[in-house]
Amino acid sequence: MAMAMECGLLLRNMRATIAVSRGCKLRFESIGGEFRAPGLTRRNGVSFTSRSFATQVRAAVAETQEREEGPAIQVPKVKAKVETNKNKEKNLKVTPRSQDFSKWYLDVIDAAELADYGPVRGTMVIRPYGYAIWEFIQSWLDARFKETGHSNMYFPQLIPYSFIEKEASHVEGFSPELALVTIGGGKELEERLVVRPTSETIVNHMFAQWIQSYRDLPLLINQWANVHRWEMRTRPFVRTLEFLWQEGHTAHTSAEEAEEEALRMIEVYRDFAYTQAAIPVVVGRKSRLETFAGAAITYTIEAMMGDRKALQAGTSHNLGQNFAKAFNTQYSDENNDLQYVWQTSWGMSTRMVGGIIMTHGDDTGLLFPPRVAPIQVVVVPIWKKEEQKAGVMAAAVKTESILKSAGVRVKLDATDQKTPGWKYNFWEMKGVPIRIEIGPRDVAENVVVVARRDVPGKEGKQFGVSMEEGRLLECIETRLEEIQESLLARATAFRDSNIVDVSSYEELKEAIKEGMWARGPWAGSDADEAQVKEETGATIRCFPFDQPQHSNVCFFSGSRASEVAIFAKSY
Amino acid sequence: MAMAMECGLLLRNMRATIAVSRGCKLRFESIGGEFRAPGLTRRNGVSFTSRSFATQVRAAVAETQEREEGPAIQVPKVKAKVETNKNKEKNLKVTPRSQDFSKWYLDVIDAAELADYGPVRGTMVIRPYGYAIWEFIQSWLDARFKETGHSNMYFPQLIPYSFIEKEASHVEGFSPELALVTIGGGKELEERLVVRPTSETIVNHMFAQWIQSYRDLPLLINQWANVHRWEMRTRPFVRTLEFLWQEGHTAHTSAEEAEEEALRMIEVYRDFAYTQAAIPVVVGRKSRLETFAGAAITYTIEAMMGDRKALQAGTSHNLGQNFAKAFNTQYSDENNDLQYVWQTSWGMSTRMVGGIIMTHGDDTGLLFPPRVAPIQVVVVPIWKKEEQKAGVMAAAVKTESILKSAGVRVKLDATDQKTPGWKYNFWEMKGVPIRIEIGPRDVAENVVVVARRDVPGKEGKQFGVSMEEGRLLECIETRLEEIQESLLARATAFRDSNIVDVSSYEELKEAIKEGMWARGPWAGSDADEAQVKEETGATIRCFPFDQPQHSNVCFFSGSRASEVAIFAKSY
Repeated sequence: MAMAMECGLLLRNMRATIAVSRGCKLRFESIGGEFRAPGLTRRNGVSFTSRSFATQVRAAVAETQEREEGPAIQVPKVKAKVETNKNKEKNLKVTPRSQDFSKWYLDVIDAAELADYGPVRGTMVIRPYGYAIWEFIQSWLDARFKETGHSNMYFPQLIPYSFIEKEASHVEGFSPELALVTIGGGKELEERLVVRPTSETIVNHMFAQWIQSYRDLPLLINQWANVHRWEMRTRPFVRTLEFLWQEGHTAHTSAEEAEEEALRMIEVYRDFAYTQAAIPVVVGRKSRLETFAGAAITYTIEAMMGDRKALQAGTSHNLGQNFAKAFNTQYSDENNDLQYVWQTSWGMSTRMVGGIIMTHGDDTGLLFPPRVAPIQVVVVPIWKKEEQKAGVMAAAVKTESILKSAGVRVKLDATDQKTPGWKYNFWEMKGVPIRIEIGPRDVAENVVVVARRDVPGKEGKQFGVSMEEGRLLECIETRLEEIQESLLARATAFRDSNIVDVSSYEELKEAIKEGMWARGPWAGSDADEAQVKEETGATIRCFPFDQPQHSNVCFFSGSRASEVAIFAKSY
Repeated sequence: MAMAMECGLLLRNMRATIAVSRGCKLRFESIGGEFRAPGLTRRNGVSFTSRSFATQVRAAVAETQEREEGPAIQVPKVKAKVETNKNKEKNLKVTPRSQDFSKWYLDVIDAAELADYGPVRGTMVIRPYGYAIWEFIQSWLDARFKETGHSNMYFPQLIPYSFIEKEASHVEGFSPELALVTIGGGKELEERLVVRPTSETIVNHMFAQWIQSYRDLPLLINQWANVHRWEMRTRPFVRTLEFLWQEGHTAHTSAEEAEEEALRMIEVYRDFAYTQAAIPVVVGRKSRLETFAGAAITYTIEAMMGDRKALQAGTSHNLGQNFAKAFNTQYSDENNDLQYVWQTSWGMSTRMVGGIIMTHGDDTGLLFPPRVAPIQVVVVPIWKKEEQKAGVMAAAVKTESILKSAGVRVKLDATDQKTPGWKYNFWEMKGVPIRIEIGPRDVAENVVVVARRDVPGKEGKQFGVSMEEGRLLECIETRLEEIQESLLARATAFRDSNIVDVSSYEELKEAIKEGMWARGPWAGSDADEAQVKEETGATIRCFPFDQPQHSNVCFFSGSRASEVAIFAKSY
């Protein structure tokens, strides 16, 4: 049974070979160059079990990658052939969230198999349990886009470099982040091609050909696609070199109509966040500095994560006529005069999955709001004696079948290689909102036990729930609804208790230092805003639509301020 | 009302400026270099209406592009601000299929707005009417993949170049077609990254980390993604530099299980082709020469297009242990011994959309089988006098609403800027299977007229169909089913009448020359197969699963042959 684990890591000019025998002795070699993953060097020579070690190596590598610049490619050749059960037991241990939020986040993603690291630095493999959340987001948004008159289509991913240069602020914003294809079919290309970071340029190139008359407007389209941005600091779901998203693009005959559209779509995102993801986002307008490269106005939904950092979770841009003028996207109006179109674009991405994890998770692991949960209910059958098994399993199968036919996403965990206790821990870590326990005594009474993930221990358990179809369904559907509401209420209370109204720069600095969001009247310049960022690490997240009662004096410049802004550190 | 159209084309070193005034006089200048678009030069000086001219220019450019090699980038700056109605009238004119199949294909794609050319040579923009077909394909296949136990996930698109080199025949097959990212974030990368042409390599890199024990198998996943292959000869949907597809990847503990899986998935594709796309594909095994680069066995569905060329419309590969050995994808079996996994991969792409167009379209334009049709029924209201309008429109809206609530994809064409006759032609060209006509007399009698797209003229019309909900629905659903069956029957008869059994090489040459598929006993070598291709242009499409009665003598080599093969020219 003695198994060995070999793990090779190639990070820039450094190669480390690590062998861990079953007894967990560690041999570590660094071949050339400095090994800069501090989480690893600190632990050199210490004993680790193979899987948690692999996890730690990976986290350390990820941390190092964040600090690294340039085109390092990481090709970890992890080849761990260890006893699987043992290995999976280890999987349950995640760093408590209260202890180290960042490490907790990477741990739950690994342990719950939501995602893994791709071979290229900063890329991510989205595993089935994580992808299921994205599929839910897709289907919900897609239906909403269609209801609001948008059609799906698909634009090529490769964009001539010259396109990116056409809109001045767009090229300034995006050129540092581009991935470029320079070789195709074995030959150097005459013009470098940009791997789509966003599609406004190619969309306008095509819109300019399709739009002729005012009768062709509004033109309302959306595409589901992958995009690349060569980010230096990456984190699974939150910021990756490649991510999946939808990008809506529309063209209109008037400024007013474009503005309405931009607002309509940020409202769709707000609605998704509140009603599905149970995230009480703050909706607002971005400052000039934070506006999308090429947009006139950017609207945003800002979410407060469990560590109180802000996450920009969706944006909708009123593009004005910026791209229309750069690409000559014109139409003949009713008087046959040529006019530039007014445009919008808007997007939500796989980042939302990270937002859901970081809003609701706790020390135990993930906690999914029922509506977005890949699995809403897990059924755990319990028996001690072999003669009890048949009856318990029959009840468990029946329970699964009742829930499944009602459209509940249910999983029956019927393996007999794990104890019920192990299963409880496992599915709690995986964030399944409801667990149904069925033991021999329950079978005798034709009942089940229903346990809520969001209320630990006995308090969250309901005993003696009838297995009669109608009553069981009513109970489960009510509980799911309660959990959904409870998570939103909890997140809302957390958010509200962590926003501080400030009336001086000192107060803002204090609030930010304590990890809070600071809200106060703002009329500062771009330079003022940059100074606040430089000195506190906080940026203007938005001028919220919901403006509280406030003084008219900018807390920073002392000028007359008509609006409050929210400042926070962010992802 | 005099409008001018200006059209600039940049093709390699050639620039042509064309101005067409409303009177359709043509001025043509070629500035430097030779203008090699023959379709255009031949027509130099001839009068054209602006839109059909633009279409022809585009087709000519596309033809030229096909013959071109290397990294030419085409950036057409077509800016046609012409009167839209007029413009759309022109759209209806497509080259009859019987006259020039290839030109008909490009014409219908343009006129029906299925797709457009992207700015980079060989790329395609999939427009809403074309994308809707892909969405149908996606939803049908996705449900089937899930029913058969597969989970969706997502792998990074950028793959280290070294991965591609690991499997010998894989790199040989794919290296000439790769697009490479060499610059990221403004810096030259240390290792070039391949823009995914297919994902077996990166999948195995991850599988090797995830698979430890036989308990982790089978591992059954699928991804929906875009892929790039730097093709020289391109054609919308059929062969483009970038295309959308799904790729399934599975790992198993035994050769038998992998073989079962490969066969199960080619059957899913066959089922889709027959029951949804009404394409009577031939299912079979590829020859060694035509097997996927890296596979042990490739299964294929081969479709006969309207010009009798074959289209490979979906493939399923038994990969054996080729990638497992290259990537060390191993598991511990029940005796704790390390074993290589057995794998499959399988894919269907946006090429299927091209297959549907080229199977069913006719001289009039597109003709969609009802199950895949983006619009299944179009409702055309007809009135002459203004006082008739309200009654007719009310009946049309009611008809639309009855069909919509029954789940029929229906479109009410209520514009009064077009005549009913124009609308008939337009929606026939767009391939809508059923048209409902409603005039004042129909309204008086509470009936409608139902016209089948696949049966022209009066013969395809059913008069006096009751507007009573139940009877209307029954009629429409029956007609849709009839059209679906009729298209499959028609395509099957066409296919069968164009497959010739051959017993000598002379007979094969004759059959291929006449544009037919040739079927005969084959036991030739790879070299023999290459010779046939060289001399006739035909390749082995497959050894069909359905083997007819046949002689045991290879028609080419005279050796003992246990199987017949089908030869054909193909896309």
